[in-house]
Amino acid sequence: MSIAPARVHFAAPDRLWPGYAEALPRVFAEAGVAAELSRDHPPGEVDWIVYAPGGPALDFAAFSRAKGVLSLWAGVERIVGTVPADLPLTRMVDDGLRQGMAEWVAGHALRHHLGIDAHVLRQDGVWRHVAPKLARDRPVTVLGLGELGMACARTLAGLGFPVTGWSRRPRAEPRLAHALSGPEGLPEALAGAEIVVLLTPLTPETENLMDAARLSLPARGFVLLNPGRGALIDDAALLAALDGGQVGHATLDVFRQEPLPPDHAFWAHPRVTVTPHIAAETRVESAARVIAENLRRGAAGEPLLHLVDRRTGY
Amino acid sequence: MSIAPARVHFAAPDRLWPGYAEALPRVFAEAGVAAELSRDHPPGEVDWIVYAPGGPALDFAAFSRAKGVLSLWAGVERIVGTVPADLPLTRMVDDGLRQGMAEWVAGHALRHHLGIDAHVLRQDGVWRHVAPKLARDRPVTVLGLGELGMACARTLAGLGFPVTGWSRRPRAEPRLAHALSGPEGLPEALAGAEIVVLLTPLTPETENLMDAARLSLPARGFVLLNPGRGALIDDAALLAALDGGQVGHATLDVFRQEPLPPDHAFWAHPRVTVTPHIAAETRVESAARVIAENLRRGAAGEPLLHLVDRRTGY
Repeated sequence: MSIAPARVHFAAPDRLWPGYAEALPRVFAEAGVAAELSRDHPPGEVDWIVYAPGGPALDFAAFSRAKGVLSLWAGVERIVGTVPADLPLTRMVDDGLRQGMAEWVAGHALRHHLGIDAHVLRQDGVWRHVAPKLARDRPVTVLGLGELGMACARTLAGLGFPVTGWSRRPRAEPRLAHALSGPEGLPEALAGAEIVVLLTPLTPETENLMDAARLSLPARGFVLLNPGRGALIDDAALLAALDGGQVGHATLDVFRQEPLPPDHAFWAHPRVTVTPHIAAETRVESAARVIAENLRRGAAGEPLLHLVDRRTGY
Repeated sequence: MSIAPARVHFAAPDRLWPGYAEALPRVFAEAGVAAELSRDHPPGEVDWIVYAPGGPALDFAAFSRAKGVLSLWAGVERIVGTVPADLPLTRMVDDGLRQGMAEWVAGHALRHHLGIDAHVLRQDGVWRHVAPKLARDRPVTVLGLGELGMACARTLAGLGFPVTGWSRRPRAEPRLAHALSGPEGLPEALAGAEIVVLLTPLTPETENLMDAARLSLPARGFVLLNPGRGALIDDAALLAALDGGQVGHATLDVFRQEPLPPDHAFWAHPRVTVTPHIAAETRVESAARVIAENLRRGAAGEPLLHLVDRRTGY
């Protein structure tokens, strides 16, 4: 008996379509998953929705027999309120995304640690023989120890930085110098940090996590790296802390509005580096494998990978 | 019976004296090593010479009872010909130096891999959403697998780069994607590399190692990192390869003449980054421990650490 192929609706921005239109059918075939990918299935006949915000408006109620929504993004805060609560929703956790994030965080942490900007910006013929201190003398704090935060914390520890990790719930990881958790652990996690990396999920509790009070806790002149979510930062408080010298530099990959408007103060500030949401770009090839595996699990009645807990929102 | 303290002569540039004048006596005391550090011992009464080139001229013949020369630097090519062949000579191999080198190499490899310069130099309000490829798709070759080269190769492999290592004699290291050796292995080691790191010792065989022919072997547009020794590179060939596009960027920490003269073409070239010999700065604290350990070994008649093989020159 042959099984009818699952109907998979692709609901994402147009720019993502060519890559996935090529990769998904091929990876489905390689994985032995019977599925038909389209942007034109009648909603009432769709089994699965592959989803990323920014595409055509979606009326989830019309997908009456859908078995789940498979997000192409790791962060689901923009859709967790729109997807009906009884429809399973999965986040994207792919190896390429985790690896790319760890590379961005390690690269920018080392850039600031080694003072690379001064060399890139000032090749003026003056030999300033001042070696940076070693990573083991540069405390780094990672806020958020999910898949991405933990991968970054491990990579930073592997480079020699003493890494303090903080998360909502306690997490054990032998390579962390300190592991703290909960609201009561946050001030201690930030105290004295010279580099702070933001990788908590965005929830009502973490919006404006880095406000004026928390920005005052790390070492004076500290570096803030935000590859997580723009709204984790109170933008006005950050600009004030930069101007006052409490924050030495902010390298930001994510923003409340993206693309970041050309007239935003972050672009012009001499101690802010904007990168255009590239830290954790989902890679088509590895993401397609995660989607295929969840279709296989769905067909086999097995639990889906990376299911979002609808109470916590991630 | 009390042992007469060893007389240790400090022969190094003035700028190093304050740090070592503080650290060495303290570390000797902590290690239980009886030794008197000075710059004014009569040469004929000196037991050990702590040495770095660039200080006052030294007549080694006058140090008639010296038991050895303890270099503060890892590279000894400038002194290996001057120190009498029957006087033991040790290189500096300290943990801080190895760690600092690995951090410089990892930082600049990631800087080029992630295209960080474009973000640092061009904050123009234009949102260019192009994510870099992953480190696993960026082959890196490390020439030289001594203490420093191997430490860097391991760090780069830990970041996900596929690392090819090359050394004069075969070296095994499971984290290397490929290990090659000898003159016959060099072309294969360079072929297709997108980042090349120079960490071979400087010997008559390795001078101008990167000449026009070898610069043509890696991938077009490759990045050259030289934290090793300036004379490993044929400077004119490198400038030609930069102008022709075969080399995309060179980040250089060491030069034939240091400080690099202000009018040298490397300072002005838009695709050369000069850093002022900071990649492997010996750290006073850890270097002092290595010196103290060798004094202890010398007094106990044990073999010295990091003894230079006078035939190979390192």
